[in-house]
Amino acid sequence: MGFPVVGVVGGGQLARMMAPPAIALGITLEVLARDAHDSAALVVPGTTVGAEDDLEALRAFARRCDVLTFDHEHVPTGHLRTLVAEGVVVRPGPDALEHAQDKLVMRRRLTQLGVACPRWRAVTTADELAAFGAEVGWPLVLKTPRGGYDGKGVRLVEQPGDADDWLASSTVDTPLLAEERVAFSRELAVLVARSPHGQAAVWPVVETVQVDGVCREVVAPAPMHQDHALAAQQAALRIAEGLGVTGVMAVEMFDTEAGVLVNELAMRPHNSGHWTIEGSRTSQFEQHLRAVLDLPLGDTRMTAPHVVMANVLGGDFPDMYDGYLHCLAHDPGIRIHMYGKQVRPGRKVGHVTALGSDAEDVRERARHAAAFLRGDIHE
Amino acid sequence: MGFPVVGVVGGGQLARMMAPPAIALGITLEVLARDAHDSAALVVPGTTVGAEDDLEALRAFARRCDVLTFDHEHVPTGHLRTLVAEGVVVRPGPDALEHAQDKLVMRRRLTQLGVACPRWRAVTTADELAAFGAEVGWPLVLKTPRGGYDGKGVRLVEQPGDADDWLASSTVDTPLLAEERVAFSRELAVLVARSPHGQAAVWPVVETVQVDGVCREVVAPAPMHQDHALAAQQAALRIAEGLGVTGVMAVEMFDTEAGVLVNELAMRPHNSGHWTIEGSRTSQFEQHLRAVLDLPLGDTRMTAPHVVMANVLGGDFPDMYDGYLHCLAHDPGIRIHMYGKQVRPGRKVGHVTALGSDAEDVRERARHAAAFLRGDIHE
Repeated sequence: MGFPVVGVVGGGQLARMMAPPAIALGITLEVLARDAHDSAALVVPGTTVGAEDDLEALRAFARRCDVLTFDHEHVPTGHLRTLVAEGVVVRPGPDALEHAQDKLVMRRRLTQLGVACPRWRAVTTADELAAFGAEVGWPLVLKTPRGGYDGKGVRLVEQPGDADDWLASSTVDTPLLAEERVAFSRELAVLVARSPHGQAAVWPVVETVQVDGVCREVVAPAPMHQDHALAAQQAALRIAEGLGVTGVMAVEMFDTEAGVLVNELAMRPHNSGHWTIEGSRTSQFEQHLRAVLDLPLGDTRMTAPHVVMANVLGGDFPDMYDGYLHCLAHDPGIRIHMYGKQVRPGRKVGHVTALGSDAEDVRERARHAAAFLRGDIHE
Repeated sequence: MGFPVVGVVGGGQLARMMAPPAIALGITLEVLARDAHDSAALVVPGTTVGAEDDLEALRAFARRCDVLTFDHEHVPTGHLRTLVAEGVVVRPGPDALEHAQDKLVMRRRLTQLGVACPRWRAVTTADELAAFGAEVGWPLVLKTPRGGYDGKGVRLVEQPGDADDWLASSTVDTPLLAEERVAFSRELAVLVARSPHGQAAVWPVVETVQVDGVCREVVAPAPMHQDHALAAQQAALRIAEGLGVTGVMAVEMFDTEAGVLVNELAMRPHNSGHWTIEGSRTSQFEQHLRAVLDLPLGDTRMTAPHVVMANVLGGDFPDMYDGYLHCLAHDPGIRIHMYGKQVRPGRKVGHVTALGSDAEDVRERARHAAAFLRGDIHE
């Protein structure tokens, strides 16, 4: 057997960041991108322009690949089931992937598995919402089960009647997901990888700092008691096994007085794992490739005691090159990742990673670098 | 100013390994490769097929790039001078690069700079060779000043008359380089980077283990007294400054009782620096891009106490995939780099890197992995 070909559906920064480990490992990467200027399309020679919801495009793309995987979760499950029936190797498979595409499917399954979650209910009417609110208290969180990301498709509902617009378009077949608003002290994430033959690997638990629903910083490892971290890692491993995940999965959690509660799942490399590129012996991107190819998984140990990743969000200035020069000059140890995306306010256009032995210093360096790049500071 | 474009002349594994840091830094890489199946051509979308000795091809290629740099030293100096005269930014420039292309030019200049070298002489006749041999002793080393690599263009001459074939084709304008055979205890290499505005950075001194003139292993750091290492690093920095090098330069040295003597120079990322990909905060490939773009240089500190790189040479089996699986399964911490090259006996087709805190263990892991890949061992 020769070296394999991995096809990634979606041309965003996650597919882009799979390119470096694919180059090292001698694995050929193919990308199905919406646009020839997508982040990954700029750096991967084997890029096909096509839509992820076009079955014929997916089918033609899959023919060139040994295994199909994803940059995002927006591929219609039906298309994937068709491809699997036709013999295409899809990892993660549609049965697993659906838990990351549909939050209601996910809640039902996690509850079956006995994984601690916020209290939740599928609601389609104002009465059902009111009843659930009476039970868990107001405000509560209302979500569209499909299509949300970075705070979209999620709203805080203060009282019955505040969600009539969303409820008007929900039916028994397309209910909304209502969840209690959890009093959490912070948000955590656990990244796990699992291969088809069942090998699994987990990275240290991280703390994710969100601002306006968008991840701003990731602190690795999350400062916490070892037993508490172990419980979070075990929950992630149980989910990966229970859902039959192949590849990398990120489990986002709320840290509460009663323990960790699972918030969201992503079945692909995830923003909360970008720190692993330099911060772990095996990055989430390399591990994802190894896992979907059923190759032995790599060492997930950290390369430094403390690692902090800060997202670079687009600011008011389209040209980041000046800030980039400042940033490189200011801190020779900072690791910069630019995604080749046009700058728009609030858009994730890159990230920076700092590593070191002093937690506060590392965090300050990452913040400083991200602010330089955004153009918020100039010294 | 936007993010720049770096053009690399040559499509070998060195250009290939520049791709990952270029992707991270948001720098666009263009490659001029002899063949569309060259190592770098397989992974860089901006690949042009063309010859490095074709001035028109170089000129057209340079038009698309902000700066021109190299995967190898085989570009005719005359072509580079023409391009520079036409306004192309070439780094390292032809004046510096000539010292890596022509060993006689290098010896003359290093001697002027007061850098310790083996005793040497330009010879064109058997009498001159005999006179030099009488002075430094037999056997001595005879080199063709241009075109040699991996032991080619170098021979050991036992006595006068043994080199008549080479001398027959040498003239006053194209002399041979005769050097004393140095009694060295081991070979060392120092990697240095220098940018056009004069910033320089040096990595720890490494020991290179050669077998039949081909580098087999690189041990970082070389076990040696700090003062001795500092002297070697200072010599490399003095050469970079004295020759006006821009980009990464590898200085290969003999370690002798009288101190280090400079053997060869390479003005590009070098096999002796592959360990920096995981073993240093800033790899030689990233640093080369930063240096030729006159960006601030990165931190060269090591990421582990001991790092060993072992080259993977082609063995008797064209298919390495089985060995690759063994290797990944045996050691989850091993870092594998495959170059996408067809396997031929003795050809460098990849390398592996091991990192850790126990020098012997790290070395054993790297050796073991390389032997697995080559197919020398199966358990």
